[in-house]
Amino acid sequence: MINKLMTDYRQKTDTAIDLFFPQCNKEYSAVIEAARYSLTLGGKRIRPILMLLFAKLCGGKEAEILPFAVALEMIHTYSLIHDDLPCMDNDDMRRGKPSCHIKFGEDTALLAGDTLLTESFGVALKSTADAENKLRALDVLRERAGADGMIGGQVMDLSFEKASPDAEALKRMYLMKTGALLSAAAEIGCILSGADENTINIARKYAQNTGLAFQIIDDILDVTGDEAVLGKPIGSDSENNKTTFVTLFGLEKAKEIAIELTTEALNLLKKLDGDTSDIALLTDYLLNRNY
Amino acid sequence: MINKLMTDYRQKTDTAIDLFFPQCNKEYSAVIEAARYSLTLGGKRIRPILMLLFAKLCGGKEAEILPFAVALEMIHTYSLIHDDLPCMDNDDMRRGKPSCHIKFGEDTALLAGDTLLTESFGVALKSTADAENKLRALDVLRERAGADGMIGGQVMDLSFEKASPDAEALKRMYLMKTGALLSAAAEIGCILSGADENTINIARKYAQNTGLAFQIIDDILDVTGDEAVLGKPIGSDSENNKTTFVTLFGLEKAKEIAIELTTEALNLLKKLDGDTSDIALLTDYLLNRNY
Repeated sequence: MINKLMTDYRQKTDTAIDLFFPQCNKEYSAVIEAARYSLTLGGKRIRPILMLLFAKLCGGKEAEILPFAVALEMIHTYSLIHDDLPCMDNDDMRRGKPSCHIKFGEDTALLAGDTLLTESFGVALKSTADAENKLRALDVLRERAGADGMIGGQVMDLSFEKASPDAEALKRMYLMKTGALLSAAAEIGCILSGADENTINIARKYAQNTGLAFQIIDDILDVTGDEAVLGKPIGSDSENNKTTFVTLFGLEKAKEIAIELTTEALNLLKKLDGDTSDIALLTDYLLNRNY
Repeated sequence: MINKLMTDYRQKTDTAIDLFFPQCNKEYSAVIEAARYSLTLGGKRIRPILMLLFAKLCGGKEAEILPFAVALEMIHTYSLIHDDLPCMDNDDMRRGKPSCHIKFGEDTALLAGDTLLTESFGVALKSTADAENKLRALDVLRERAGADGMIGGQVMDLSFEKASPDAEALKRMYLMKTGALLSAAAEIGCILSGADENTINIARKYAQNTGLAFQIIDDILDVTGDEAVLGKPIGSDSENNKTTFVTLFGLEKAKEIAIELTTEALNLLKKLDGDTSDIALLTDYLLNRNY
């Protein structure tokens, strides 16, 4: 059931990526090739799928949503490319394949990230949604990706190399680093569908809980996961002396917290009108994943 | 005359930067500090000034333009920060001061660039201009900064390290790397002021000529300039075996080409209705600069 749902929506997203992803002149296409490489490296498309499911719930038109879904995936991808660079996490592998800078060189990878971020706004602007809703959705996309969202989370993450965080600080960082783009997905799906403020607020809270749970499960999988399934080495957190929910609370308690957060997310869904069963399926999928 | 004009408009821009530049939580303010450092490193504010002058010519409201003027300067600044990184030009100095990554570290500089780019769209969105004009101006901002604009120019520039360009390829690169953001300035000034398509097209051509002349003068100053005035070392082009208009045509011919382009730009201004004398002053200033 969830597999079919994921496959269908992943297919929709991938088709939209092909449709909306910028072509460019051969003379400077190296950066587009590098960007496309990372964008099609086998991502799960969780953010686009979440946006499309919330839009469906709120009666939105899929064709108006897809450009924003692609834009959000482009922003997610740019953040991974820049995160993998030697001056950041220095990761040679991403999803079991060479990361962008290993394959194309650091300079091209840097510019590929810049391109994905810049062009994401162009792709979003292709949406034929109502102008005012589109302007609001653009600003949510920007805010969740920016200094008070994902980038702020990355900055906190860097600061933790110098001073280990307590649980509250770690939680704030996860909410920004991972929760912010999931929030963008849920919120934008609602906004472009003309949903009311109450729905948008619940969608945001749902996504924050889910994002936090998602990141805690990453912490758990870094200890218990299977490298072949994950497509990346395990044990890197402990190797880098990273503070995680597992180091702070232990494996069992971390699992409990992730389950609590997911339960809370599922309870929030029940407060929404309409059939949220697909979103609930996705939520369960995210909690029970082994990759 | 030009000095007073530049000072007045630079002041307006700097005030708008203070007003619109994002504040953020202390916990992750490192990236905002780094971004602000580079944004206030003594840039000439040519792009914002050009946008404001075109808006004035077209009867636009300055308050509606300033957010876009700041956004464009933020995009220009992000491109300098990323360009200075070790994996790109590896420049330790910028405007006579340590470049962003020297002062704040490579990771923070990378994220400061990402922040400036992301938040530039948020600042632009604060404009109270008509929604449709704003959406169009946002897309012009994105296009000129993106794969078919500034970034495409940077990619071509990188490719020239492997194969020296001929004059036509070098010209195309300059038009993108420098011309694109100047075009954005002129075009957006017109668009937000409700100018007609003919005016927008002339403004774009004017800015392309000016951008190309500007870049050729950079080539000339790298040979004839004064390091103390320029705030950066001279001779770096020849040290890096770069093909420039000076290496292709010689110093005198390069100067002639820059003068021709500027004359052409000034002639384009004459085709516009209204008083273009301030824009003409700025154009002369750009040609006759020694820094």
